[in-house]
Amino acid sequence: MPKRSLIHLDFFKKPIDRSMFRIKAKQVGLPPGTLVHVGQQKTEKPVINLIDYDQTHLDSQADITIEEAAAVKETTTVSWINVSGIHDTGLIEAFGQHFDIHPLALEDILNTHHRPKIDEYEDFSLVILKMLFYDDQTHSITAEQISVLLGRGYVLSFQETEGDVFDGVRERIQRGNGKIRQRGPDYLAYALIDSIVDSYFHILEKVGDRLEQIEDDLICNPETEPLSSIYHYKRELLLLRKSVWPLREVINQMHKEASPLIKKSTQIYLRDLYDHTIQVIDTLEIFRDAMTGLQDLYMSTVSNRMNEIMKVLTIMASIFIPITFIAGVYGMNFEYMPELKWRWGYFAVWGFMAGCAIALLVYFRKKKWL
Amino acid sequence: MPKRSLIHLDFFKKPIDRSMFRIKAKQVGLPPGTLVHVGQQKTEKPVINLIDYDQTHLDSQADITIEEAAAVKETTTVSWINVSGIHDTGLIEAFGQHFDIHPLALEDILNTHHRPKIDEYEDFSLVILKMLFYDDQTHSITAEQISVLLGRGYVLSFQETEGDVFDGVRERIQRGNGKIRQRGPDYLAYALIDSIVDSYFHILEKVGDRLEQIEDDLICNPETEPLSSIYHYKRELLLLRKSVWPLREVINQMHKEASPLIKKSTQIYLRDLYDHTIQVIDTLEIFRDAMTGLQDLYMSTVSNRMNEIMKVLTIMASIFIPITFIAGVYGMNFEYMPELKWRWGYFAVWGFMAGCAIALLVYFRKKKWL
Amino acid sequence: MPKRSLIHLDFFKKPIDRSMFRIKAKQVGLPPGTLVHVGQQKTEKPVINLIDYDQTHLDSQADITIEEAAAVKETTTVSWINVSGIHDTGLIEAFGQHFDIHPLALEDILNTHHRPKIDEYEDFSLVILKMLFYDDQTHSITAEQISVLLGRGYVLSFQETEGDVFDGVRERIQRGNGKIRQRGPDYLAYALIDSIVDSYFHILEKVGDRLEQIEDDLICNPETEPLSSIYHYKRELLLLRKSVWPLREVINQMHKEASPLIKKSTQIYLRDLYDHTIQVIDTLEIFRDAMTGLQDLYMSTVSNRMNEIMKVLTIMASIFIPITFIAGVYGMNFEYMPELKWRWGYFAVWGFMAGCAIALLVYFRKKKWL
Amino acid sequence: MPKRSLIHLDFFKKPIDRSMFRIKAKQVGLPPGTLVHVGQQKTEKPVINLIDYDQTHLDSQADITIEEAAAVKETTTVSWINVSGIHDTGLIEAFGQHFDIHPLALEDILNTHHRPKIDEYEDFSLVILKMLFYDDQTHSITAEQISVLLGRGYVLSFQETEGDVFDGVRERIQRGNGKIRQRGPDYLAYALIDSIVDSYFHILEKVGDRLEQIEDDLICNPETEPLSSIYHYKRELLLLRKSVWPLREVINQMHKEASPLIKKSTQIYLRDLYDHTIQVIDTLEIFRDAMTGLQDLYMSTVSNRMNEIMKVLTIMASIFIPITFIAGVYGMNFEYMPELKWRWGYFAVWGFMAGCAIALLVYFRKKKWL
Amino acid sequence: MPKRSLIHLDFFKKPIDRSMFRIKAKQVGLPPGTLVHVGQQKTEKPVINLIDYDQTHLDSQADITIEEAAAVKETTTVSWINVSGIHDTGLIEAFGQHFDIHPLALEDILNTHHRPKIDEYEDFSLVILKMLFYDDQTHSITAEQISVLLGRGYVLSFQETEGDVFDGVRERIQRGNGKIRQRGPDYLAYALIDSIVDSYFHILEKVGDRLEQIEDDLICNPETEPLSSIYHYKRELLLLRKSVWPLREVINQMHKEASPLIKKSTQIYLRDLYDHTIQVIDTLEIFRDAMTGLQDLYMSTVSNRMNEIMKVLTIMASIFIPITFIAGVYGMNFEYMPELKWRWGYFAVWGFMAGCAIALLVYFRKKKWL
Repeated sequence: MPKRSLIHLDFFKKPIDRSMFRIKAKQVGLPPGTLVHVGQQKTEKPVINLIDYDQTHLDSQADITIEEAAAVKETTTVSWINVSGIHDTGLIEAFGQHFDIHPLALEDILNTHHRPKIDEYEDFSLVILKMLFYDDQTHSITAEQISVLLGRGYVLSFQETEGDVFDGVRERIQRGNGKIRQRGPDYLAYALIDSIVDSYFHILEKVGDRLEQIEDDLICNPETEPLSSIYHYKRELLLLRKSVWPLREVINQMHKEASPLIKKSTQIYLRDLYDHTIQVIDTLEIFRDAMTGLQDLYMSTVSNRMNEIMKVLTIMASIFIPITFIAGVYGMNFEYMPELKWRWGYFAVWGFMAGCAIALLVYFRKKKWL
Repeated sequence: MPKRSLIHLDFFKKPIDRSMFRIKAKQVGLPPGTLVHVGQQKTEKPVINLIDYDQTHLDSQADITIEEAAAVKETTTVSWINVSGIHDTGLIEAFGQHFDIHPLALEDILNTHHRPKIDEYEDFSLVILKMLFYDDQTHSITAEQISVLLGRGYVLSFQETEGDVFDGVRERIQRGNGKIRQRGPDYLAYALIDSIVDSYFHILEKVGDRLEQIEDDLICNPETEPLSSIYHYKRELLLLRKSVWPLREVINQMHKEASPLIKKSTQIYLRDLYDHTIQVIDTLEIFRDAMTGLQDLYMSTVSNRMNEIMKVLTIMASIFIPITFIAGVYGMNFEYMPELKWRWGYFAVWGFMAGCAIALLVYFRKKKWL
Repeated sequence: MPKRSLIHLDFFKKPIDRSMFRIKAKQVGLPPGTLVHVGQQKTEKPVINLIDYDQTHLDSQADITIEEAAAVKETTTVSWINVSGIHDTGLIEAFGQHFDIHPLALEDILNTHHRPKIDEYEDFSLVILKMLFYDDQTHSITAEQISVLLGRGYVLSFQETEGDVFDGVRERIQRGNGKIRQRGPDYLAYALIDSIVDSYFHILEKVGDRLEQIEDDLICNPETEPLSSIYHYKRELLLLRKSVWPLREVINQMHKEASPLIKKSTQIYLRDLYDHTIQVIDTLEIFRDAMTGLQDLYMSTVSNRMNEIMKVLTIMASIFIPITFIAGVYGMNFEYMPELKWRWGYFAVWGFMAGCAIALLVYFRKKKWL
Repeated sequence: MPKRSLIHLDFFKKPIDRSMFRIKAKQVGLPPGTLVHVGQQKTEKPVINLIDYDQTHLDSQADITIEEAAAVKETTTVSWINVSGIHDTGLIEAFGQHFDIHPLALEDILNTHHRPKIDEYEDFSLVILKMLFYDDQTHSITAEQISVLLGRGYVLSFQETEGDVFDGVRERIQRGNGKIRQRGPDYLAYALIDSIVDSYFHILEKVGDRLEQIEDDLICNPETEPLSSIYHYKRELLLLRKSVWPLREVINQMHKEASPLIKKSTQIYLRDLYDHTIQVIDTLEIFRDAMTGLQDLYMSTVSNRMNEIMKVLTIMASIFIPITFIAGVYGMNFEYMPELKWRWGYFAVWGFMAGCAIALLVYFRKKKWL
Repeated sequence: MPKRSLIHLDFFKKPIDRSMFRIKAKQVGLPPGTLVHVGQQKTEKPVINLIDYDQTHLDSQADITIEEAAAVKETTTVSWINVSGIHDTGLIEAFGQHFDIHPLALEDILNTHHRPKIDEYEDFSLVILKMLFYDDQTHSITAEQISVLLGRGYVLSFQETEGDVFDGVRERIQRGNGKIRQRGPDYLAYALIDSIVDSYFHILEKVGDRLEQIEDDLICNPETEPLSSIYHYKRELLLLRKSVWPLREVINQMHKEASPLIKKSTQIYLRDLYDHTIQVIDTLEIFRDAMTGLQDLYMSTVSNRMNEIMKVLTIMASIFIPITFIAGVYGMNFEYMPELKWRWGYFAVWGFMAGCAIALLVYFRKKKWL
């Protein structure tokens, strides 16, 4: 009785991330620009942080009120206001009023199902991106939406939760001697997006490691059934592609269509960013091709194991079938069967049966089936 | 005797929606612009409703005559005339005369086989869309064609039946304090199309739920044969794609090619609408990829179950074949078979046969086939 | 002995239309513009018909000479000269001389292997199309090439045989009160092409019916082997695609690139025609997708039936193999086999064998293989 | 013992044309424009032929020296110098000096691995094409590179071997009354390219015949294993595609980008040529689709034959297994087996076994497996 | 017992080049333009070589310091500074300062994971390419990144290790009479890139040889299991494609977008280079198609061998099953079995069994299964 099937489905008992199937529709008929949070509430209370700087001056405040945040809007310094937690529509609306943001942009910030995109308004540009995190335990990737709003003299960033990939940017601002302090909000927005794209390389590093491991599993322990890994892996790649592909167009548009908000000196950095995005996409495509190759190989391996089982057993059957027939013949009860009387008949039959079996074995070996 | 096959075809007994195969050709040789209703008659008597409004004034009338409807054409207010039921070619022709609509546009309104499209005429723009409804009982999607005709000062909408997704719009007009009352017919047309695209998200929500359920079925009850669900689901996605893909081009054209009928202030809403359409299409593509993945998995599962059956039975056969041969040998009737006389011959043979069987079992287990 | 195989190849005995493999090359090295008829001669004697009309006047003549036809060239009326039968190169050459047609255009008219195309010359435009006919008996589609030459004041149409889809146009001209009598030759050319595209919908109607029938066959009588239908159907769709796809580009070019021969008032009709062509192409694509789905389903069904056969028989084998072995054991001729002497030995063995068989059946049912 | 396998590999013993795998790299680091012959030397001694003509005059010389050829360069007549054999780099270099040809163009002429392309230089245009020949014996296609260099007042053509498809052009020049004598070198170049494209139709004719024959083989003699034909055929199509696809772009470029070397009167012929190229490509695509269809069908047929074999044999097995068991039962040697003593026991058992067999046959037939 | 499976996985024990899965992310949050070496350190100490030349003068120095190298920057001669070894970020930074190179360009030079690309800065252009090497032992391809920086009057080239494909260029410069000495740095840059593309043809030559060999293996020794070769080969092609495809766009951009750094006289060489790149890509595509064809063929062959094994054995089984049944019948112990008493019963049964077997053999042969 078989204890292990060729393909195990147990892995499905593991919770699969199906968030990508969970489309949340806002109520039909709401006017456009209605502020409704679409997505999961991931944090309890939104936190507003402010970093306000120019070449000589630096002011960093944590957990401030929106009024405090709005106060820096008119200053000539660069103000970076980061909001963690976007489920509070009242807060987002207040931002809209203080910073004079178009309701459609606010609606976009609240809807976490967006693909990466850029929308240019008269006074500001809104870039929506996905921040990706890799969980080393479950080997799963989670995505968090981040909206970067570049206005005149300020940058607003809205994240779903606290915890982001911007610590490097914060440090560079703190340090004070870098390029970032000498440049405007456009460079800051670029630096934020650049951090996100850089973080994709870390995800790819992990995903590449995992691909190697799946390959190793397939080679060394084909019976560990890597199908589960393959299935999960493909979903991860699907999610990655969904997050990264549109980014290419977003950054290309930022680079090519000169918005007045983006200085010429920043353009060259955007081109560099574009190259990085292409690199991410290229790597994803290579992973996908390699994955397909592995899947084909796995399928061949499974089918080959089955074939081998069938072959062994059928060869065994086909050797014993003729000699069982011979044994059957001499089990017949005819009165006149001369061989039965022969002194050496029994041993002759044994010899004949052995001969048959050996002949068949030789034939199979010659045919290279054995 | 097998009571359950691996794949059930019973589901085909359920009526499948084949409306997409039913092409209805109008009579060949009719002059272009001939008004012929192409499609099913879905309602008994066309009903004309009118909502006429501007910032201060609101007039809402149900089931009026065409002459009453035409009377509001020249007013400076925004007039929304909604017609439910388009099989009455006489009525449509009368609309053509009263509102000076090109016969080709009338012909398009009457032909319900259109893909979504926009046609710009000198005095008006005609947008043809599909309204989709999800039936929770049969999990099937039905489509209804809707034509939105944006003229100077009025919007005409033609539906196949009563019952639509515009109640939200009607409410916002009634409420009187919204943006919609301050804006022109272009914004009204946008609001109608926006309602339709919003309703697609509801369909996607249902379709996503169903996808999860099919996945669950596949994992927990592989013997419930989800092939029927998969086949139906693929048809639904085909229908959705057919209705939604061309919409992208339609809305892009509305947004990019500045028609004099559409004010600049409305353009920004159209860009937002375009983003939503892209989101719908993206989700559809993800569903399709996930579906393909599931189908592959299902196929592997079926093939694996078959392999498992074959393996079990063949292993059984290959253990009994050699020992049946041995039993056959000692069933031979040779006069001189020394073993037969041995006191413990019978038990020795039993022992030998058991040994063979155990050796084979060990070999199979070592080969990891067991 | 098997009387019916899973897949029948008998249908191949039916004549398949292989006309699309029959490329007829004209003799290499002939100068371009040499008039050679490429294709089958489908009619005996070419017939020239003339309809000459303007708003007030109508003159219709059948089977006239080319000189009579050429006489109307210079009149201010719209002249439609229809030629049925194009194998007579002399006649086509004479047309070339009387109507001053470029030799390359004449060569194109004579070569029936063209894909739909439009060529604009200085004084005329040549549109080459395929007229399609559906044979209800054989469910096959035949194509006939038609060339529509729009000149100043006249339209020439060249068909391979008599019998076309233009009766509606003729009737509208006869009736005299329609739009067609008030407009020029560009509208006439449009009306002809429109009739052809309209006729495609009829073909699609038939093809859609056939698709439903194939689906029914597959569901209700899977043993009628619909593979033949599927194979034929795919060829038909291939032929349709070949005839219709290029048409899209042809009509788009007529619509977009304003030829002086086409009046602005006719442009709007061309846009409508373009929409219809897109509709035809869309439907073709849906049919193709549905066909692929059906083929997959058919393949699963065949493979499933095979699996079922294998399963039944292998289960039977695996129940009888162990009990046959037991019977073999007690057929051995050892002198000392205590069971053989037992009073109830025979019945005990029967019981044991029945027990084995039942245990196996229970196991198989528990495994859901039965 | 099987005498015929389902798939034969013997055809591989036939020499396959692998020329397309044989990439010949010139020595790395040679300066660009270095003249190295890349390809096989196909002829012994290059032969130069000259045809010099205008409307009134014709001069045709065979096997002349390069100095004689260069002498006609400055005349006002049209000079066509055809070189057969390009392995002599000295000769090509001499041409370069006499006709002032850019070294890169000379390098291209010598490298026979080029895809079809057009390069426009200041004083001349170089078109590189493939001449295709079909070998009726081996059903294989061979390609020969031809370079047509259109200069002011002359056309140079370089072929790998003698023997081409230009005899028709030569004849038309000789005849003297055709269009070709009245026109310039641009028309001559066009006529040469046109001859090549015309010759493709002959190849397609042959290839189409072969496709029909493969189909016939598949239908009437499925055991002749058409896999070899299919494999060869696909390679042929691959080679054809490689030679023809880029041509489309070449001729489009000649047609669209007005080179000063090409007169306006010749443009119309280039458009016609473009149409022919499209026709060739269309036909190739249809052949490819048909080929894929045939391959699918072949695979189904092979798999179906295997299934049929398995089915017949398994049915046989499953009928005999139960009745063999019964025979085994009554072969047991129990002392007390009442049936054995019955007078009609033997015949009753025969009857019972026949009943079992018939019941199974009926069941199988009811299940439509027989 | 089977000694050889149909598919061997031993080849996996060979080290596979997985460098393409090893994505190395630089630390997140580093400012753009931070100089970090990304890749493996392949050499110990960077070596700087200088060749400085014009038409009359030549100066070649090996292993110089950066200050020596920078000294030639302002001269009117062409200076080619080649750096082997890029892991020393200090050195690269020094180059940046001496030659006034943008930090982003320096960052690109240090990151060896780039796809081929061209970045145009104000004062220089940076071209990043892959140099490929073929290892005849392991049949594997290794890639090395090379950055060519074209400035005003100088060319910098940065390689990962010593050893390159530029010896031909060096020789041509040394020789002194070639075109290269008369032209500027743009021609030098072109010559370097041209050497790299030329070297690709050598790789293709080797890869083509290998493809032939795999084909031979498949045909002559199908049991050598070429799956390992196929799998490796596909990875090699994947790597090649990754290195070559983007090159097409790079060279097209150099050719089309006239940079002031590239003289018009060099443009024509770039067009030639573009053609070569297309040729490389075309060949890669053909190899890929041929590979796919081979893989299909291999799969058919494996499946066919399995089918053949099954067929032989099943035929054997189905011949012996009925006659074993007959032997079983006459092994029954009924008291009254008339045949047993017959004198020739035993021989008659032998005859009957032989007849059965022969009849089955004839039937199978008639069915062409044998």
